[in-house]
Amino acid sequence: MPDKEFKETLKKVNQFRISKDYDIEQFISSLKDTGFNAKRLALACEIYKDMIEDKDCTKFFGLAGALVPAGMQGVIHDFIQEGFIDILITTGANLTHDVAETLGYHHLQGEVNINDLNDVKLHEEEMNRIYDVFMPNKVYEGIEDFVSKLEIPDYTMPVSSFLKFLGEKLPKNENSILKICAENDVPIFCPAFTDSGLALQLGFHHQKINLNHFKDMLKMVDLAWDAKKAGICIVGGGVPKNFIMQSLQFCPTSASYAIQITMDRPEPGGLSGATLREAISWGKLNEQARYSTLISDATIALPIILWYLKKSEK
Amino acid sequence: MPDKEFKETLKKVNQFRISKDYDIEQFISSLKDTGFNAKRLALACEIYKDMIEDKDCTKFFGLAGALVPAGMQGVIHDFIQEGFIDILITTGANLTHDVAETLGYHHLQGEVNINDLNDVKLHEEEMNRIYDVFMPNKVYEGIEDFVSKLEIPDYTMPVSSFLKFLGEKLPKNENSILKICAENDVPIFCPAFTDSGLALQLGFHHQKINLNHFKDMLKMVDLAWDAKKAGICIVGGGVPKNFIMQSLQFCPTSASYAIQITMDRPEPGGLSGATLREAISWGKLNEQARYSTLISDATIALPIILWYLKKSEK
Amino acid sequence: MPDKEFKETLKKVNQFRISKDYDIEQFISSLKDTGFNAKRLALACEIYKDMIEDKDCTKFFGLAGALVPAGMQGVIHDFIQEGFIDILITTGANLTHDVAETLGYHHLQGEVNINDLNDVKLHEEEMNRIYDVFMPNKVYEGIEDFVSKLEIPDYTMPVSSFLKFLGEKLPKNENSILKICAENDVPIFCPAFTDSGLALQLGFHHQKINLNHFKDMLKMVDLAWDAKKAGICIVGGGVPKNFIMQSLQFCPTSASYAIQITMDRPEPGGLSGATLREAISWGKLNEQARYSTLISDATIALPIILWYLKKSEK
Amino acid sequence: MPDKEFKETLKKVNQFRISKDYDIEQFISSLKDTGFNAKRLALACEIYKDMIEDKDCTKFFGLAGALVPAGMQGVIHDFIQEGFIDILITTGANLTHDVAETLGYHHLQGEVNINDLNDVKLHEEEMNRIYDVFMPNKVYEGIEDFVSKLEIPDYTMPVSSFLKFLGEKLPKNENSILKICAENDVPIFCPAFTDSGLALQLGFHHQKINLNHFKDMLKMVDLAWDAKKAGICIVGGGVPKNFIMQSLQFCPTSASYAIQITMDRPEPGGLSGATLREAISWGKLNEQARYSTLISDATIALPIILWYLKKSEK
Repeated sequence: MPDKEFKETLKKVNQFRISKDYDIEQFISSLKDTGFNAKRLALACEIYKDMIEDKDCTKFFGLAGALVPAGMQGVIHDFIQEGFIDILITTGANLTHDVAETLGYHHLQGEVNINDLNDVKLHEEEMNRIYDVFMPNKVYEGIEDFVSKLEIPDYTMPVSSFLKFLGEKLPKNENSILKICAENDVPIFCPAFTDSGLALQLGFHHQKINLNHFKDMLKMVDLAWDAKKAGICIVGGGVPKNFIMQSLQFCPTSASYAIQITMDRPEPGGLSGATLREAISWGKLNEQARYSTLISDATIALPIILWYLKKSEK
Repeated sequence: MPDKEFKETLKKVNQFRISKDYDIEQFISSLKDTGFNAKRLALACEIYKDMIEDKDCTKFFGLAGALVPAGMQGVIHDFIQEGFIDILITTGANLTHDVAETLGYHHLQGEVNINDLNDVKLHEEEMNRIYDVFMPNKVYEGIEDFVSKLEIPDYTMPVSSFLKFLGEKLPKNENSILKICAENDVPIFCPAFTDSGLALQLGFHHQKINLNHFKDMLKMVDLAWDAKKAGICIVGGGVPKNFIMQSLQFCPTSASYAIQITMDRPEPGGLSGATLREAISWGKLNEQARYSTLISDATIALPIILWYLKKSEK
Repeated sequence: MPDKEFKETLKKVNQFRISKDYDIEQFISSLKDTGFNAKRLALACEIYKDMIEDKDCTKFFGLAGALVPAGMQGVIHDFIQEGFIDILITTGANLTHDVAETLGYHHLQGEVNINDLNDVKLHEEEMNRIYDVFMPNKVYEGIEDFVSKLEIPDYTMPVSSFLKFLGEKLPKNENSILKICAENDVPIFCPAFTDSGLALQLGFHHQKINLNHFKDMLKMVDLAWDAKKAGICIVGGGVPKNFIMQSLQFCPTSASYAIQITMDRPEPGGLSGATLREAISWGKLNEQARYSTLISDATIALPIILWYLKKSEK
Repeated sequence: MPDKEFKETLKKVNQFRISKDYDIEQFISSLKDTGFNAKRLALACEIYKDMIEDKDCTKFFGLAGALVPAGMQGVIHDFIQEGFIDILITTGANLTHDVAETLGYHHLQGEVNINDLNDVKLHEEEMNRIYDVFMPNKVYEGIEDFVSKLEIPDYTMPVSSFLKFLGEKLPKNENSILKICAENDVPIFCPAFTDSGLALQLGFHHQKINLNHFKDMLKMVDLAWDAKKAGICIVGGGVPKNFIMQSLQFCPTSASYAIQITMDRPEPGGLSGATLREAISWGKLNEQARYSTLISDATIALPIILWYLKKSEK
């Protein structure tokens, strides 16, 4: 940090006021020149907006965490529909939950206190708990029924090709992530696909299946290689984060824009909690990259960012 | 958890969509029937609204954390101005920062990455760091000048009386917490007042001072004792949380409404991370209390709650 | 919680003393009847010991996080050598780091403060940062050289078979995880294998490779299905945790012993932070299971547990 | 970070092995040249040892968090008895719990799962919960009885003088913190004393009490001013951390040794989660200070550090 530059950027913290009739742009603008995570949230909104307006930028979106069970399926759907995501990398769990909702099944919630939940009783009632939301066991039956009837044209296609095929086969649904990705030609990568209920059903009913994971890995490297510029939004870390990051090492310009929304912390050294700053040492972000490592539950931050992006869209 | 009750409250997770023209009420309403902290944020907004509309409810507000340096002075000011706080309990640090801003000094921020900050150099430049905001040393000189000239009528008055006196002596300022509390007769309690730069200057320049802490302690107990109903909003925990909680044990109805916004976690057993649920065992919350323990940076959650409360006010 | 049972288990918190000549068994025993994470650490030690002594128990070990770069390679090696792990599930990153160390390369650390690290300069020096440890870029060259020369007998074998083959081909090394697993016939599963530097080199130099991930998924289900009893130790969560958990749903007895060591928190709903208790609702842990969800950096907890297990081994 | 210095300190991460017959010194020595919090724990042990061996060093110890209820009373007692603490700064809660145990009352724990606890029922049973330990209401009656009978010689003495008086009046007890401090002339500061059950009983039964908090504040400044060198160990942050830190600004040499053990995180800007590094900008730590910000539950870290210090004592 050259001394001169540091001092030159310093200015007053904005002791802002809020009017009840503010729109989301005015609200985020208020948070801009403050501190802590308020500032980072405003910065994340701005960076994502710039990323969208930069026509040279390929937007990678990494999605981990139980976002669909927590009611964020429509939010992610809209990120894709609005063109805010070019390439989606996610977990098998989110895809499994997306298939469930798309087939007409539902996750449940209620006026229940987390401390009052009796997991033994929940098990007897075949109600699988994900913190404070629930997936009834019977959902799996619906997924199994759907998967068992799939006529898969090629057992060795890349996972991403299978996910496109799956999106095409799923019924019309206004919130479906797989569906909107298939319709809008947004590729989905899922490096740990066999780590999911969806893949288990596939394996049980299509025993010869050997979807190709390596072709996807190389395709991601190609996508990064071909990107004029790259921007990333990482929700929650995990395999999606690392899979994007390892590919970005092959992007000639590395990432120029980066957002991470996580509740993990950096000190224990895991990737999910690692700051975006660390990625510069690896050449995954470039030296001039604008980035914001936002410490927030994604169920709060993602809807706000989407709201802001929709409002500020030209 | 009686089985019947649990099942009866269950309903579908709301897979909501966001329109760019939503106002904050529509936004919060969308988050209501979801999961994780999105749901808790919506619940916190609702509970605070109910607390305001319940004319029998005394609203205790506990404020810890460096909220003023992070640009939240106006937010807290407005909570008081709007009548959303009846009794404020806070730290000496927040009062010190409030005095600084009220006297015309400022906290600073800039386009600086936290990893780039060199604390040795910052020390040479007399720039005190609070994560990613800064308080120049010279601010203390301004506080010292103001405090040294105070003509304190009674060295043994309760801390809360002194803080009211201080609010009256401070110059007019649109964001000042001490000022608006003095004007609106909202008492401020500060049990750890001598743990602050403000108190240090007092002690240096008024050596006979012995502000009474015990009278404040008993006054808080009286306020809790006299409350028909009690509602609490705890920001960040610490001494303000405990001071409210120990008083609530003497409130005949215990608290009926409760919100906590914290980033601390419960497992290591500290009070700041303790869930509100735990307070029921102590009789600090009553059994029918509505409460939301929100895991979020207060710099994000507080402005959203204020925005919602202003918009929904009748 | 039946009232009677709760009261019957209550006893005094142990206000213990420590003698300088304590061995690790005496130390852990002191922590037993206390509270918070001290108690959970003692419980984790006891449960792991019971798991080892229970000859019917198959021990699944899930390993996520950058444990090898942080110096824990020998610790994990010894868990395997001592027979404390029957089946290892891990990330591609840990295997990549293990290959690097086994080939004679090293991770680096130093008397450097994390705030002083300049990631731009680190990038210029080709020094990849993992929080406060470093992997020089040239390590990748060594891995590439090794991988490019591998004569892989079957491009469609399961990932676990390839990892055994890899362990056999690696040079003798006293700390190598892959080596000791190959020698002791401990299977390694790596569901997100293509999410790693090791897999990238494989893909670049063996373009026809399509290691079978589905066969591993089914093999894990079979292992769980065949287990008379199951015990799990989860380090850090992530894909290894979920891959074990999804298999345990097919274990007739579900898991009877469970330990998780994590720094993630449960409220944002991600699997890594989910409590072990939650797994009961899914039928992944059985109702009588003994479990300890330990909130600790694994670099502290794992060596302590290993030390205890070695000392208490009969 | 001058490039040369950084490179010069780099060395191999220690891929250590553990022998079952290790003593605590050998164990900590193994963790020394690793990464993440294992390394920080080893560093904390070393720094504390150096602090003790440096005869010019005044050792300030800040204690927040419910350590006594969690069974750490004897550990803290021994830190004092061994001379590892020169000045103790703590919360009213820890003193209240210490008085309770010293009077022969006990905190309780049991084989209870935190999720199974019904706080409503606990309230009916007059069992106050502190995460997973319990304090029966009747303990307060014992404290009240003791406090009401105290013949307090001076109602305006400093809090620290009263705490010494209290320690003298308490019965002999092998674990008592107040007792050993009184016996060994280790001053106890408690800036937020009125935020405690102990102070409430004092206030109820000795209505004229107005213990002087300002004299303690100035006395702490004097102690820091007079220290040839200063070393600090901060457990959990809060008021004790800030009270030490604000005094250290008046120490001519600032702190030369510093340890913090916390589970809070730095990003939300609260003092408890702030890194020790930040304190350099304020002049609270000097530029050459050796420090370790250890992210760990104190119930794990404190007993380990005590064990190490006892073993390595000459």
